[in-house]
Amino acid sequence: MHIRVINPNTTASMTRKIGAAAERIAAPGTRISATNPASGPVSIESHFDEAISAVGVIDEVRRGERDGIDAYIVACFGDPGLLAARELTRAPVIGIAEAAFHMATLVSTRFSIVTTLGRTGIIAEHLLANYGFAHHCRRVRAAEIPVLDLEDDGEAAMLRLVDECKRARDADNIGAIVLGCGGMADLTAQISDAVGLPVIEGVTASVKLAEALVGLGLGTSKHGDLAFPRPKTFTGRFDYLSQ
Amino acid sequence: MHIRVINPNTTASMTRKIGAAAERIAAPGTRISATNPASGPVSIESHFDEAISAVGVIDEVRRGERDGIDAYIVACFGDPGLLAARELTRAPVIGIAEAAFHMATLVSTRFSIVTTLGRTGIIAEHLLANYGFAHHCRRVRAAEIPVLDLEDDGEAAMLRLVDECKRARDADNIGAIVLGCGGMADLTAQISDAVGLPVIEGVTASVKLAEALVGLGLGTSKHGDLAFPRPKTFTGRFDYLSQ
Amino acid sequence: MHIRVINPNTTASMTRKIGAAAERIAAPGTRISATNPASGPVSIESHFDEAISAVGVIDEVRRGERDGIDAYIVACFGDPGLLAARELTRAPVIGIAEAAFHMATLVSTRFSIVTTLGRTGIIAEHLLANYGFAHHCRRVRAAEIPVLDLEDDGEAAMLRLVDECKRARDADNIGAIVLGCGGMADLTAQISDAVGLPVIEGVTASVKLAEALVGLGLGTSKHGDLAFPRPKTFTGRFDYLSQ
Amino acid sequence: MHIRVINPNTTASMTRKIGAAAERIAAPGTRISATNPASGPVSIESHFDEAISAVGVIDEVRRGERDGIDAYIVACFGDPGLLAARELTRAPVIGIAEAAFHMATLVSTRFSIVTTLGRTGIIAEHLLANYGFAHHCRRVRAAEIPVLDLEDDGEAAMLRLVDECKRARDADNIGAIVLGCGGMADLTAQISDAVGLPVIEGVTASVKLAEALVGLGLGTSKHGDLAFPRPKTFTGRFDYLSQ
Amino acid sequence: MHIRVINPNTTASMTRKIGAAAERIAAPGTRISATNPASGPVSIESHFDEAISAVGVIDEVRRGERDGIDAYIVACFGDPGLLAARELTRAPVIGIAEAAFHMATLVSTRFSIVTTLGRTGIIAEHLLANYGFAHHCRRVRAAEIPVLDLEDDGEAAMLRLVDECKRARDADNIGAIVLGCGGMADLTAQISDAVGLPVIEGVTASVKLAEALVGLGLGTSKHGDLAFPRPKTFTGRFDYLSQ
Amino acid sequence: MHIRVINPNTTASMTRKIGAAAERIAAPGTRISATNPASGPVSIESHFDEAISAVGVIDEVRRGERDGIDAYIVACFGDPGLLAARELTRAPVIGIAEAAFHMATLVSTRFSIVTTLGRTGIIAEHLLANYGFAHHCRRVRAAEIPVLDLEDDGEAAMLRLVDECKRARDADNIGAIVLGCGGMADLTAQISDAVGLPVIEGVTASVKLAEALVGLGLGTSKHGDLAFPRPKTFTGRFDYLSQ
Repeated sequence: MHIRVINPNTTASMTRKIGAAAERIAAPGTRISATNPASGPVSIESHFDEAISAVGVIDEVRRGERDGIDAYIVACFGDPGLLAARELTRAPVIGIAEAAFHMATLVSTRFSIVTTLGRTGIIAEHLLANYGFAHHCRRVRAAEIPVLDLEDDGEAAMLRLVDECKRARDADNIGAIVLGCGGMADLTAQISDAVGLPVIEGVTASVKLAEALVGLGLGTSKHGDLAFPRPKTFTGRFDYLSQ
Repeated sequence: MHIRVINPNTTASMTRKIGAAAERIAAPGTRISATNPASGPVSIESHFDEAISAVGVIDEVRRGERDGIDAYIVACFGDPGLLAARELTRAPVIGIAEAAFHMATLVSTRFSIVTTLGRTGIIAEHLLANYGFAHHCRRVRAAEIPVLDLEDDGEAAMLRLVDECKRARDADNIGAIVLGCGGMADLTAQISDAVGLPVIEGVTASVKLAEALVGLGLGTSKHGDLAFPRPKTFTGRFDYLSQ
Repeated sequence: MHIRVINPNTTASMTRKIGAAAERIAAPGTRISATNPASGPVSIESHFDEAISAVGVIDEVRRGERDGIDAYIVACFGDPGLLAARELTRAPVIGIAEAAFHMATLVSTRFSIVTTLGRTGIIAEHLLANYGFAHHCRRVRAAEIPVLDLEDDGEAAMLRLVDECKRARDADNIGAIVLGCGGMADLTAQISDAVGLPVIEGVTASVKLAEALVGLGLGTSKHGDLAFPRPKTFTGRFDYLSQ
Repeated sequence: MHIRVINPNTTASMTRKIGAAAERIAAPGTRISATNPASGPVSIESHFDEAISAVGVIDEVRRGERDGIDAYIVACFGDPGLLAARELTRAPVIGIAEAAFHMATLVSTRFSIVTTLGRTGIIAEHLLANYGFAHHCRRVRAAEIPVLDLEDDGEAAMLRLVDECKRARDADNIGAIVLGCGGMADLTAQISDAVGLPVIEGVTASVKLAEALVGLGLGTSKHGDLAFPRPKTFTGRFDYLSQ
Repeated sequence: MHIRVINPNTTASMTRKIGAAAERIAAPGTRISATNPASGPVSIESHFDEAISAVGVIDEVRRGERDGIDAYIVACFGDPGLLAARELTRAPVIGIAEAAFHMATLVSTRFSIVTTLGRTGIIAEHLLANYGFAHHCRRVRAAEIPVLDLEDDGEAAMLRLVDECKRARDADNIGAIVLGCGGMADLTAQISDAVGLPVIEGVTASVKLAEALVGLGLGTSKHGDLAFPRPKTFTGRFDYLSQ
Repeated sequence: MHIRVINPNTTASMTRKIGAAAERIAAPGTRISATNPASGPVSIESHFDEAISAVGVIDEVRRGERDGIDAYIVACFGDPGLLAARELTRAPVIGIAEAAFHMATLVSTRFSIVTTLGRTGIIAEHLLANYGFAHHCRRVRAAEIPVLDLEDDGEAAMLRLVDECKRARDADNIGAIVLGCGGMADLTAQISDAVGLPVIEGVTASVKLAEALVGLGLGTSKHGDLAFPRPKTFTGRFDYLSQ
């Protein structure tokens, strides 16, 4: 089984970190390949960054189809381009936000999210509503850490994250915490130890969900609204998408 | 007041039709300029088409900012790139789906949508839920007309639309119908006459909403999650977005 | 275009203030006439006040029909009698609460309401739910100012409103504020300046929405549940309503 | 215990019928007095009729307060003026729609409503949503019987009601039926026999709920938003409401 | 009329207290018999306790059917086994949580719950959602009193309850309080006096609701999903349930 | 990894079938042991059957704790006793209904359920609402097959299931089908082939989810409302549960 972990931003160090986290958790027979688009934002912290990164996700899924990929992971907490990606393949495609939410509801009745910047909270709120998990989430919290600070200043970022997670644990009446950024993929164990309740991170969660779906022989439905897109012309710099 | 009507697909004839519809409805002091991106899909009928078209919307808003635009309209019924576009400007940005929904709730208690292809129904359902109008909409109906058939085979398409609208009127217990495609902007009056209840189309609705917002001195809030994106590096073919 | 702004309470000074605010915002071709019923409460601060004022709204719409009115505005934040009024006319009828909510969702993802008295908060909550905007509104706040204090003691009321708006801005994670009383129609600009984010007031918002609907040729649907009421006998002091 | 059953319309024969149904169901110690306002519509079949009838409800509650009434019933399926009436008294005030819904959820998991005219269906839908019962109701059905036909042409109306109830029973996957009109108060037993599942009617349901609340010593909360209205001036023909 | 009040836990002193509260509130013609299962937990403070207690509720309803019971009350605030119990009888079966919620919505627009232990809050939240009352309840509060402390240390428990109720009254913007434990059945009057707003307790509320339903001739629907269970074999210690 | 698959009913042939299906799907390192309680109903087709079977689930989890089980599966589509079971262990506990729903949302935007008897549909509806998947499910369909007919008359049952699944595929506007009974665990592949879209069955889905959670080091949160129950006395035949 070959899982392609797509980091939708273009920061290679984060891609490596995410890939390493994915490999550590993968089952023996699972091959992980982590990629990021050549083009796009170096981090994703707004609807604008998300919209641009969705093109990169699409490009990577198209490339993956040529590579015979068995499952895809979209490794940014906003799940950018998720439904578009699903249309392009029979393989399962999993967003790390949805993966984390699903897992959180299986081990707790209520959870909180601790994310990077307050302004991305609305993205999490929209996803919770779309996926059906709005009433499972008590609160979306932000540690106010820019995404790349997780790369550049890991120690300080870690401390702020642990602090915010402790506040969630003590005030939110929850059973679990969801970490709201792919860049936190390597911090889960440490934070969970420090905080003392299940801490769920989406990259690892989605690797296991992808293995589960492939194991079940389940892929994206090609009946109905996730069927392959109707072939058509794309113009200009997107003409490579024409069929 | 200068309103930029952005057709997110790249079919110039549709852009002209949409622009003409916008001009017909615009107030005397309103200048309409209709554009479409140079790059992107010739029609938008899937999540995939939508994701690519969002880049074109973003590019057109960025160009509009240099042109001193007062309000933007995203003239595709899926409102692609809407929140991203809002982050890029202090001007209001209006999607034609949301505009049509808002107007429909002001003249009826329940409405149905008649759209092009069944597979795009899920996009409308997601928008209804996000905007808060899910319980105002009785049913999303599809006339199963590919978008470009509205260009190429207007007569036949018109007949199918009217038929579906009549079915909605007779079966759905509604007071109004929302047309679910920017390519129907020139058909509203004809359909409304044939069907005998208010038929609402988003391009015209959003021109008037844009005039309303500009008249009120209201633009996209720059406080909170629609603030301008944090400046950052974009790589590869998106490096022109770096700040 | 002749817009009738109906102040549902019977305080003429407030009617004048509301009318003036409506005129300032109206487009060149728009004629505003502001009225209030001869009979009813001098201010509206309860369900009871609302129920009585609905009769005045109905009377004013009936009078407006004889005057050839093109659109009606119900200028009390509880939108009293709104659906009843819609049944009586082919013209659009807009409540200032709904108008403000619609506009707020077009320029922000989340807003708070700042209203007069805490006890009227439940009215706003019910409207938010009915209109579909419950999840767009973070919080309904009250400055605890009786409505007529806005007339009698404008300066002090203004200070309390600005204070409450600042608290909303700083604590509620919002992008815009909706002012929850028709009596605040003249304060919008001042408050917006003081608070630094979009402040939306319903009288002005509904004038522009009314112009938009009339411009679109859209009026209240007469198909279905907003059709003209079945003619019937009314007894006693309401016999003038018999048909 | 003295329960005042207020028929919000002004048709005395219906008031008598409703009163008789209330008396038949009342407990030994319960005194029933059925009244209707002197002024208002002879039947209630629209938002407009409802708004006018709310004044009559208010007048009757005010009169009831002088009569030392222990509980009030608003005997029209739209529950007109309910929250306004509650503000005016420490006694409980119960609408027949809400009473029927509450009872229906206690004996079944899902119910359908069979009402008079299709156009009043929206009123029932709004009530279901406000009260929290939207997902307990499978369908709002109309037998398309004008309210006064229940008086004038009881036999034919009865047949149509039974037919519609049978359709609900066979198609809606329900356990109970709610009758959607106070004018059906005398038909419950007959319909229930014919249809073979619990048929719930609001007048009788609300008499028993009123007895229950009075028995518990519970009345309308005067803490918060249902407190007595602030005393104020009413003008014109409503000056009798001034305090 | 013979109402069987089933205390789902096995603490006889609590059964007596609940029975006494039920008797005090019962109408003259109503006979109350309070029972508890011979087997089960001495108090119910978790999903686990609830699941076991549901068997006792079932056993007691089956016994009640032989005794000719007219209505059943499940006197634990989690309403354990409620739908199962309903399947076993034509009589009405009422849970004390649902009874309290229904009554609270009839005398206030918003209420808070004050329960025993924080960990049982989730049970109340699930019930609110299932019954449709989620948006009527502002907050679920816990006084952090183990259930049996209500028996053993009544005075101290009482003080903590009153304190928590006062906090609810002052902070939650509510009109009524629901007490979240059957063991509080004797404290209602005292707490209501101390707090100054309607305090609703489920045992008494459900006695009056049971009287109401029986008075109406309404019992659990045997049409559809609450019909008697299909007869079948039960094995082992549950073989007495075989039919 | 040792997964205990608990068949909550007491039909050993079904336990073997479920166990075999679980083993076929399990990963190499996973050990499956399928059990059923000694006591309880031979099939689960009502709330009553469910309530009794929850005791068996609890007993099996308690036994599993002594056996060092790593994850539990509750293999009945109503997920009986799920939250109670979770309180008793640090291991993950997964219900087959929830597992199927989670998987269905990952490969489609909308699904339908095809279950055994119509009367169990309400159980599925309640689960969908509690888990947050109500708006992902278009329709709950029943093939009207008693559970044990899946054992006794597999061929005929199979034909009816395929027919109902085809109706769902053609009429419901869905991308996937969820099979609503543990007894269908061996039919998935056959039905999926016949129907031509993803068919998801909960036993297999939950084995893979259990492997995923264990692989992630995630177990039921012991912080908050799923913590181990407070030790207490159980009386009578449940005294073995005392601590």
